[in-house]
Order: sequence, then C-alpha cells, then structure tokens
Amino acid sequence: MTTNRQWVLKERPQGMIGEQHFEYREVDVPAIAEGEVLIRNLSLSFDPTQRGWVNDMESYMPPVGIGEVMRASSVGQVVESKNDEFKTGDLVQGLGGWQDYFSSGSNSLIPISKLPQGVTPEMALGVLGITGLTAYFGLLDLGHPKEGETVLVSGAAGATGSVAGQIAKIKGCRVVGIAGGDEKCNWLTEEAGFDAAIDYKNQDVPIMIKEYCPSGLDIYFDNVGGDILQAALNNLAMHARVILCGGISSYNEEVPPPGPNNLMNLIGTRSRMEGFIIIDYMDRMAEFHNEMGQWLQEGKIVHLEDVQQGFENIPSTLQRLFTGQNLGKQLLKIADPS
Amino acid sequence: MTTNRQWVLKERPQGMIGEQHFEYREVDVPAIAEGEVLIRNLSLSFDPTQRGWVNDMESYMPPVGIGEVMRASSVGQVVESKNDEFKTGDLVQGLGGWQDYFSSGSNSLIPISKLPQGVTPEMALGVLGITGLTAYFGLLDLGHPKEGETVLVSGAAGATGSVAGQIAKIKGCRVVGIAGGDEKCNWLTEEAGFDAAIDYKNQDVPIMIKEYCPSGLDIYFDNVGGDILQAALNNLAMHARVILCGGISSYNEEVPPPGPNNLMNLIGTRSRMEGFIIIDYMDRMAEFHNEMGQWLQEGKIVHLEDVQQGFENIPSTLQRLFTGQNLGKQLLKIADPS
Repeated sequence: MTTNRQWVLKERPQGMIGEQHFEYREVDVPAIAEGEVLIRNLSLSFDPTQRGWVNDMESYMPPVGIGEVMRASSVGQVVESKNDEFKTGDLVQGLGGWQDYFSSGSNSLIPISKLPQGVTPEMALGVLGITGLTAYFGLLDLGHPKEGETVLVSGAAGATGSVAGQIAKIKGCRVVGIAGGDEKCNWLTEEAGFDAAIDYKNQDVPIMIKEYCPSGLDIYFDNVGGDILQAALNNLAMHARVILCGGISSYNEEVPPPGPNNLMNLIGTRSRMEGFIIIDYMDRMAEFHNEMGQWLQEGKIVHLEDVQQGFENIPSTLQRLFTGQNLGKQLLKIADPS
Repeated sequence: MTTNRQWVLKERPQGMIGEQHFEYREVDVPAIAEGEVLIRNLSLSFDPTQRGWVNDMESYMPPVGIGEVMRASSVGQVVESKNDEFKTGDLVQGLGGWQDYFSSGSNSLIPISKLPQGVTPEMALGVLGITGLTAYFGLLDLGHPKEGETVLVSGAAGATGSVAGQIAKIKGCRVVGIAGGDEKCNWLTEEAGFDAAIDYKNQDVPIMIKEYCPSGLDIYFDNVGGDILQAALNNLAMHARVILCGGISSYNEEVPPPGPNNLMNLIGTRSRMEGFIIIDYMDRMAEFHNEMGQWLQEGKIVHLEDVQQGFENIPSTLQRLFTGQNLGKQLLKIADPS
C-alpha cells in the first residue's frame, strides 16, 4: 500500500466527455494529519451531475480544476485513523474521487453503519444514497403527489428516475416512465411496477404520452430536458408540477440547444416548473433513511446497480450515463472490503 | 338607438393580427329577456390575451368563433333593464365585446358602484380592473416579494407591468423595469418610482440586467417571454421566482420561436417558474379593491391610460399592444355616459 492510482482532469471537454479529457497517474498514498482518516475507495458512483463539475462555470460546487483528481461520490473503507469517530475497517461514504485512497476529516464522511440494516455499499451510493435522496425529496417536496394523479418520469430506468417512479406508485399515482430500449422498458413495467413505459428510441414520445396519459400530467419528473420536456409541457394537466431534476440530453452539447417553445402552457394550466439541488436536503437524510429503509424491507422499492470493473475503465464508465448504456445506478467496483 | 355596430372575427390570423382579420357589420340592437339588461359600451379594454382568444386552440376560454363579435372587456351603461339588480344609468363592467350594445344576465356584470370612490370607468378596466388584479395576485401570490429583494419586470410600461412594479416598490423591493423607448423608460423612473429602467430597443438587455441587478433577480415578472426571459434566467438569485404572466413577444409568431436554452439555471439556483390565469382570482376581487383603492388614495400607485377614439379604429387599436405603441392601459372610448 504505497501507490495511489488516480484519474485527474486533463482538459475541459467541449461536447461529449470521454477518456481523452482525463489523465492517469500514480502518486504516493497521502499521509494523514491528526483528526483525519485514510480511506480506500471500494466503489465509485457515477452521476450525470459530474458532467457539470468539469465545466469552467459557477455552480453549486466549484469546478474540478485542471490537474485535480476527478470528483466522485464513493464508498470506502477506513484503513488508517487518527480520528476517534472512525476505526480501521469502518465503511464510509464520501466524495472520494477517482483514486484508490483519500484522506478526510470526519465532517464529510457518512458512516455506513448508520444506514438501515442489510444495506450494501452499492445501495449506499444508489437507492439509499444521493440518488435515492434526490428522487425522494424531488418527488415529494416539489411534486406533492396525490393519490390518483398521473406522473410521468423521464430517464425512468436510471438511478433517480426509477426510484422517483416507484415512490409515486407508493403514493397511489399512475406512473408512466420514458426510457431507451426494450430491456429498460420491460424492466420498468415488469419489475419496477410502472403502469406503462415509453421507449423513446423506438416510439413517438408525444403520441405515446397522449395515449398513456389522456388526462394529462399532474407531475412530470424531468431528468432529460430537450424534446421530451417539450412533449411533456404539451400534456400538462391543470396545476401541474414540473420537477427539474436534470437535463442529461444537453449536458454534452457544445452549444445549448434551444429550449421548449411552449412555456406558455405553464400559464394556461397554472403550472409550476421548479429546480432543486439535493445538497440542500442533506440535513434530512435520517428522515429519508427511515422511510426508504422501511420500503426496501417491505419490498416496495426495487433497485438495480450496473457495476463495472477495472480502474482503467473509470472514464469510459462515466460516458455510459450519457450514451444511455446503464440500467439502474452506474457504479464501478475498485476493490472488495478487507 | 336601433343600430348596433360590431366588429366580428372574419378569419383567424396567422402571424400579426390586424384589421384584415375582422369585418365591420351593423345589426339590430338585441332585445332582452326577463332577467337581462341591455348595456351600451362606453370604453373597450385591449389586452394581449385577446390575441390568444382568436386562435383555434383550447385555452382557459373557448376561442372566438368565425363570424362572432370579437370578445373584449368593457365598461358600459345600462340602457334598459329587466333585472332588479340593475337600473337604467348604472355603470357596469363586463365582457361587452367589440360592439355598441350587448345584452347580459347579471351574473357576468360587475357594478362599478361597488368600486372604491373616485374610480373612473377607465380605471375600472385598468388599475382597478383585470389588469391591476393580474399584477396584484401575480406578484403577491406567486412572487412573495420580501423587503430588500430585487424585482425585474418586463413590459414594465404596460398596464400590468407598471402596476406589478409599483406594488413591488410598496413591498420594499428594488425594482427594475424593461420597456421600449425613452418615453416609457423615463415614465418608469420619473413617475412610477422604478429604481431603474432598461430600454430594450436601444440597450443591451443582458448587460443592463447585470449592471442594475448585480446580486441577481429574486423575482422576475415576465410579460414578454423570448430573449428577455432568456436573459432573466441567466441572472437569477438563489430561490428566485419567475412569474409567467404573458409572452407577448411571440403571440403573433406563426411558428413559436425556440424557448430559453438555459432552464437548467432553475436547477442551480433552486428557482421556480410559474404561470397563472387571473380568472382563478375573481372571488378575491374585494380583497384587491380594498388594498389597491387604499394605495390609489394615498398616491402610492400611478397609472396611465392610453385612450384611443373611434369605432372604426378598434382593430388597429388592438395592434398597438403588439407593436408597443401603448403607454399604460390601452383603451378605446366609444361613447360618454349619458
């Protein structure tokens, strides 16, 4: 244990992000100061928001600097501790980044022992981690789903969309998901309990929304933006809530494509479109863990993890999110816990 | 009193609405049934929403049919009554349309005697009518203005925008208006108490928003849509409220122009964009009349009416709204009260 493998940002991508924008290097494992712990990353989380982190733009977090280790959520294991709150062997969640080892104070680490029983490291990054939290507060706090309402979710087979749709089902809504390809659509209706699925790669989305949601959308949970957002805005019910969670369809465009030309529909239907960032809800993590833990134990929420392997495949695994290859939460396993 | 002059819809406009889409005709003054009143229109109200009423589209009201009298708000005087609630000579407000006379039951009429003292027929269509109501509930119910916040208003020299901005001033906000030309901009800062005005015809709007609103917009009250909405979305403060009141810049476009390509800013700033239709607030008219009446008596709200003349000029007066010729509430006077 002397070498720390890393992927650092080499240049800021214009257009589609790929391996060419990162550089592999090996450095020494960091020494830790009093109060810190040294953590070995076991699994990395891949999230669409990482695409924004490498842009040279003000956002809810500072951009990753050129030459800096790529920022990423991870689950890791404490291998050395100079902090009374952690001991060697503990599993933790943090912003470990694309590397084998990182040092950290205790503030930014979430002990995995505090998660509900039976939670695997993979679940701590997905359904019970930031992704699930995003689905939970986005849908409930911004969407206010009511029994009998119609909910449309885009990116529905993704980590956030699939959970948002299932929570809407628990709340008694009729739920339609949009995803790309048969495999994802079948999973939505056969495993995840969605009432219907629209295959945007092989079906006409505006026509299918009208067919599956004849009374219009009470809630649209948007992960993609673009043409699908436009189609959803043409099918709003009165007093609809459009939850802007992400807009993955344009994250890799060099020039942002034009937006929906039908925002006036928000006026006619007295509807609301609202954005949120999940870091604002971190202090409500316990509330989420309680309820989601319960749902998982009751089998009310299913979840899928797409686990890639191999440190060398880290940059290309990020790209899987933007080409739609992942089914469920995209992860990459670096090591097993010792 | 036997002839009723009318302007009826001849064909649905594609693009800019104009006189060619209407036909002048003369018919008999209608006979009234038991329970009805006959009203002579004195002043017509011109509102951007009328452009939507002539499109063949579902909306919050059915479209005006071909061959039907063009729908319009008006102030009129009762000339014959078979209804106990009204007597000859009463002033009323209603959807009188582009004609000299109309018959009506009492349900859809608002007696002007119920308005605060000193209210002229013109004010009943503007600052104390639908226009003022729109500004009041749009800004207060959707915007929740707080002291010290920055509010940007587009279409700021128009009937709704000018009132929305002044209410924001009353609530202690810093208010910047966008309007076209020197005359309007000077009126905003010198008469209506706006802190600054941006002349979209002669200034670079994105640059001027940044200059006048360096901390970003807490509220954007949008009457225009288009490029100005895009610029506003690039300058949102955290937790901003974007109030979609109208989108006059595109009402006369044959093909709706692309929308803002920066809706993702709603996510980063945790902001909300919301539409509304004022007919949902009609049952709160008294609340509005009380407070607005008070403000008017205290001189806290100034208002301008742009009063055109001549029955033959009705269609071209509607067009003034879309070419930006009006300063304040656009009206046309047909007759004086008897």
